[in-house]
Amino acid sequence: MSIKLETANPVRSFKGRGTELVADGLVRGGQRAVVCASAGNLGQALAWSARGRELDVTVVASRFAPAVKLERIRALGARLELVDGDHELARQRAAELAAGEGVRLLEDSLDLETCEGAATIGLELVESGVAFDVVLVALGGGAMATGIGQVLKELAPGVEVICVQPEGAPAMTRSWRERRVVTTDSAVTIADGVAGRFPIAEVLDDLLVVADDAVLVQEESIITGLRMLLHDAGLVVEPSGALGVAAMLENRDRFAGRHVVTVVCGGNVDMDSYYRWIGSS
Amino acid sequence: MSIKLETANPVRSFKGRGTELVADGLVRGGQRAVVCASAGNLGQALAWSARGRELDVTVVASRFAPAVKLERIRALGARLELVDGDHELARQRAAELAAGEGVRLLEDSLDLETCEGAATIGLELVESGVAFDVVLVALGGGAMATGIGQVLKELAPGVEVICVQPEGAPAMTRSWRERRVVTTDSAVTIADGVAGRFPIAEVLDDLLVVADDAVLVQEESIITGLRMLLHDAGLVVEPSGALGVAAMLENRDRFAGRHVVTVVCGGNVDMDSYYRWIGSS
Repeated sequence: MSIKLETANPVRSFKGRGTELVADGLVRGGQRAVVCASAGNLGQALAWSARGRELDVTVVASRFAPAVKLERIRALGARLELVDGDHELARQRAAELAAGEGVRLLEDSLDLETCEGAATIGLELVESGVAFDVVLVALGGGAMATGIGQVLKELAPGVEVICVQPEGAPAMTRSWRERRVVTTDSAVTIADGVAGRFPIAEVLDDLLVVADDAVLVQEESIITGLRMLLHDAGLVVEPSGALGVAAMLENRDRFAGRHVVTVVCGGNVDMDSYYRWIGSS
Repeated sequence: MSIKLETANPVRSFKGRGTELVADGLVRGGQRAVVCASAGNLGQALAWSARGRELDVTVVASRFAPAVKLERIRALGARLELVDGDHELARQRAAELAAGEGVRLLEDSLDLETCEGAATIGLELVESGVAFDVVLVALGGGAMATGIGQVLKELAPGVEVICVQPEGAPAMTRSWRERRVVTTDSAVTIADGVAGRFPIAEVLDDLLVVADDAVLVQEESIITGLRMLLHDAGLVVEPSGALGVAAMLENRDRFAGRHVVTVVCGGNVDMDSYYRWIGSS
């Protein structure tokens, strides 16, 4: 197994790859403001990319998002508005705000820059020159899976692209399996970064083209994955970043003898929660 | 502060940069075996570099080295001989072994490949295009400090190169300050990777040319550094890898307003010791 590490950067997730494109494009287009909903990582990355670019960032997030993510969004200078609900409510509120203020709404996974940013992960994998058979990608809204998948299907079509989602937040995986948008009433998982309920139809269309499979994993496997990444790789990772390892743990036969790459996509985690997970049996 | 991360690789330290040169050179020269003394990281890296190259590796190490380092050396296929003493005794024994068997003795810091390997860290820093004022380098035998220092003095002479050693293992720092080899009777520090007592004269000569300063840090600062790297950067680091952060903590005024790069050089640590350090007040 190889790790594609996306946490060793100032925002500790892969999201900066897309927000750099977004911020650059906005400034070139003479825009001064942008609004996004965020589970926590996109908001940080957008705030980071806006620094030094004279771009005002408003992030709408669930008040249940990890404190460390909310603190970092504020610390990076963005305006943060919290909603008393989950990420889907934050998406609604962000859309209202952007419409009311007449500024760009950045929609993760729907807006191409977010997928193009993630696609550069795929490019780096291909350009590494290392042969691999499978890539495991965390599945939330779908930006990472469609971005990486698009590149691999083009440049390394023999590589199996497998999306991984928690059993407690399976909306996009169910949608992929049924080839139509399936929503869920709730999303219950420690993997807050991928806890969506309302898949976007256009993103599903792309995912149906580029993903070879979508699997669900249990919370316990995610926790074991967190522990393995800490003890064997020395990495503090957020639950979404351990989804690929969880999938390997649950599907050992499927991956035996194959070179599997797992994208460790984020490392923003409340340390008190983290220690509780790591310490649990 | 910026981190130059040297732990996100299969041997979790920077030592592979040099051992790739060594192994490649040996094989090109028709050699089939090599012996080295190692505090734990060089041996792992040499064993890693020898894989697939038909090169037999013997590593001599102190039996007091971290268990994880010794286990990894064995797991990577090297022959491991333990001595009942510290790293300096391992160095003696390795020299005897190599002489007896008529094979190459790889001497860390003395043999140019080990410094050239570390020098590529300096090249990457310069080529990153990011301007920085200071680089903090862990000081043990001196390979990393002389390698990085040489490159920076050549290509970025305005950057201050500061070596950092624990107060409990100050031989090379004292030598640098007195401009002559100073040995110590003991080396007492949790930073096992830099716990040498007998500096090499030729390495000191180079260090006197390229290092702007050499500072000593307390064990407590190293532990605080470990904790900061875990909580703020999500990185499990061995004590030697936290020396730069420790130096910043002890010299805040000196580094205020300057862009400091610290090389996080290794992450091989026994997790039980690690949790004990992190948990201590």
